[in-house]
Amino acid sequence: MSDANVARVVDRLRQQVADLHRELVRYALVVWTAGNVSARVPGEDLLVIKPSGVSYDELSAESMVVTDLDGTLVEGDHQPSSDTEAHAYVYRHMPEVGGVVHTHSTYATAWSARGEAIPCHLTMTADEFGGEIPLGPFARIGDDSIGRGIVETLRSSHSRAVLMQNHGPFTIGADAKEAVKTAVMLEDVARTMHVARQLGPTVPISDDDVTALHDRYQNVYGQRADDERR
Amino acid sequence: MSDANVARVVDRLRQQVADLHRELVRYALVVWTAGNVSARVPGEDLLVIKPSGVSYDELSAESMVVTDLDGTLVEGDHQPSSDTEAHAYVYRHMPEVGGVVHTHSTYATAWSARGEAIPCHLTMTADEFGGEIPLGPFARIGDDSIGRGIVETLRSSHSRAVLMQNHGPFTIGADAKEAVKTAVMLEDVARTMHVARQLGPTVPISDDDVTALHDRYQNVYGQRADDERR
Amino acid sequence: MSDANVARVVDRLRQQVADLHRELVRYALVVWTAGNVSARVPGEDLLVIKPSGVSYDELSAESMVVTDLDGTLVEGDHQPSSDTEAHAYVYRHMPEVGGVVHTHSTYATAWSARGEAIPCHLTMTADEFGGEIPLGPFARIGDDSIGRGIVETLRSSHSRAVLMQNHGPFTIGADAKEAVKTAVMLEDVARTMHVARQLGPTVPISDDDVTALHDRYQNVYGQRADDERR
Amino acid sequence: MSDANVARVVDRLRQQVADLHRELVRYALVVWTAGNVSARVPGEDLLVIKPSGVSYDELSAESMVVTDLDGTLVEGDHQPSSDTEAHAYVYRHMPEVGGVVHTHSTYATAWSARGEAIPCHLTMTADEFGGEIPLGPFARIGDDSIGRGIVETLRSSHSRAVLMQNHGPFTIGADAKEAVKTAVMLEDVARTMHVARQLGPTVPISDDDVTALHDRYQNVYGQRADDERR
Repeated sequence: MSDANVARVVDRLRQQVADLHRELVRYALVVWTAGNVSARVPGEDLLVIKPSGVSYDELSAESMVVTDLDGTLVEGDHQPSSDTEAHAYVYRHMPEVGGVVHTHSTYATAWSARGEAIPCHLTMTADEFGGEIPLGPFARIGDDSIGRGIVETLRSSHSRAVLMQNHGPFTIGADAKEAVKTAVMLEDVARTMHVARQLGPTVPISDDDVTALHDRYQNVYGQRADDERR
Repeated sequence: MSDANVARVVDRLRQQVADLHRELVRYALVVWTAGNVSARVPGEDLLVIKPSGVSYDELSAESMVVTDLDGTLVEGDHQPSSDTEAHAYVYRHMPEVGGVVHTHSTYATAWSARGEAIPCHLTMTADEFGGEIPLGPFARIGDDSIGRGIVETLRSSHSRAVLMQNHGPFTIGADAKEAVKTAVMLEDVARTMHVARQLGPTVPISDDDVTALHDRYQNVYGQRADDERR
Repeated sequence: MSDANVARVVDRLRQQVADLHRELVRYALVVWTAGNVSARVPGEDLLVIKPSGVSYDELSAESMVVTDLDGTLVEGDHQPSSDTEAHAYVYRHMPEVGGVVHTHSTYATAWSARGEAIPCHLTMTADEFGGEIPLGPFARIGDDSIGRGIVETLRSSHSRAVLMQNHGPFTIGADAKEAVKTAVMLEDVARTMHVARQLGPTVPISDDDVTALHDRYQNVYGQRADDERR
Repeated sequence: MSDANVARVVDRLRQQVADLHRELVRYALVVWTAGNVSARVPGEDLLVIKPSGVSYDELSAESMVVTDLDGTLVEGDHQPSSDTEAHAYVYRHMPEVGGVVHTHSTYATAWSARGEAIPCHLTMTADEFGGEIPLGPFARIGDDSIGRGIVETLRSSHSRAVLMQNHGPFTIGADAKEAVKTAVMLEDVARTMHVARQLGPTVPISDDDVTALHDRYQNVYGQRADDERR
């Protein structure tokens, strides 16, 4: 892309990423400033992400920051989110990913604190995640551990969400909006399965049914290029 | 009806169905785009339903779609909801039904994931549902199974709500507003009974009392033609 | 009071009672139209109450209805709430009561569905309720049973709230605002005690401490005639 | 400071403290009027606090009250919050504290009602609290007991939050905004750990990891003087 085109795309992504943080607030996936959305700048070694320490009320296209895929600040008046290294690692190692979301949403984080994957006992889980939602390793912030844990876990799963142990979920998507949708659906199935299990065991869905539901959902909706999923 | 009259009725129903989706949002019965309301066009083999993949913020009378009672698109710029076949099946087989609602509301879906009906141990359940809220079968999307499961379950029950196993609730009403009210009340009693059971057994209500409460509620309110129920 | 004075007081109470329903919505104590506030008209055998079947969005001073203390409609375009008989019974038998509230709020109703009083293991419960929040009997709607159950239970308790078995809470106050405050505080302590008990036993507060807290709260605040409680 | 300067600082703090109460409402940490924020006037023996019995909707800079560090009213048209003595005690004994918050937030209070500290099994808890969130003693209102319990508990902990038994949490910060942030994060980790424990034991984080996470979070963010934490 020409520099002018890159600038236009970056401007559009700044606006989109700023707006998508409002969905995290709307669905109560975050408190204070503890969650973040990023988007890859297509074709460039750049990403757009939430600045550190700015409240969701004050987020605007202008306050978003741009970093390279090592997490180094390229453009912006604030420090990038302290989770930028993990986002950047995912973009470096999963070229199909265009958006990443990290939250500490209550129910997804609760499964991660017990070190448990979320079983696929809801048709919505089958549709969206194609099987259980996997647990990733415990990893300290500060090096590649979190990013590596995310990538290794997601590569061996149909799921676009991973529960990092004792920490919280990361979700991915073809773009930032899809990653946000996945974060919203994740918390919904995490909560429903939690509530269900509180009063007894849940009924499994057979592997055949899970596969059929997932294939149908991904393919039927995938064919509608002019329409969002569901 | 003349074509002009049908068009007027359809316009009114488009507005009503669009508006009623806001009640699903208000009572937190849905996330993202995962729930839908439909209305039968009285006297015609038509229904009005939510389009697929349009967010609740963007729903308007114009974006609603009209299908026949086989779920085939008749009018509208979007694909109908992927649950249209289930709605259409209900209208074909239950002529008294004028509105259908489907959600994945947390507590109702949790009972369905355990494969349990909701017992009638609250006066509100007796009033609104006349007994336990029944469980419907597990059914894959894509043919008549969901619709058939709904209709067969509701036919042998006083309840206007059914919990489809591993999936979520469907509710019916004489019109779309009643079906939405039933979806709201269902989630309320599903949540209250869930919370109650978390700390021990609930006290049953005798069959006599359930029948007396249900009859009074349906009849006393039924006589007030100018007034909504409760 | 002269007729003109009564009319002025009734107009003020219509506005206050309409406004107070918004607090029930704000604190999520009610869904759809399932909860109601009333106020006694001081010095008259009259009460002001929510009309039946009008949504909270549409409530206005004008839509409130006035009944006598037998629950018979005196003034208003709608039927009075179907719970009017219970409110009226309380006013007839407890002259110190100026406001009554009925809800089906989730946590309070859950305790009532198990047939359990809420123990006084929080300083907030001691402050507001002066001891455990008592359980009232199961009572069918349609005669004096509900009203009688409320009055008999409250008379032998410090609490201004009662949990009617399988049904839900009623609260009272010197005026409608106090009864609403009690309904709000009730659901708060019902929820907190529920959550606390989910993971194990709660620590009791000694009778001496309960009495000291309650006396201080009622008296210290009672001396401030120009100020609301707390 | 000159008197004019003190007046300017007090005016600014009145506004800030009034505004911060809205965060308590936004994060559902309080109902009715049952929670309060205060700020120390730097360099003076004064604090700014919520008035007693004024609803959150009506709070304004003007309605805030100023007391000395014994809790005696210095300026304002209302009585100070009934918790002022506890706030004042903290300011007298912890000179590094510039803001104090008290709530009865559901999940934090639930842990306190069982007499349990909140274990540090979430990275967010390690980041923010540096270890478990400690339990303080049961203390009656009306003398120094509450303040003393808060100070003694916090002095032997990394945590800026304490759970007063049967009562609820108090949090502190370098200023009122930090104390509010801590109250918000506290309820979030109290809720997540509660939810996690409902279905089984949680996975511990090693002391080494807790220390490393806490140090990094406090130091990395502490170095950014121009930026808020996280």
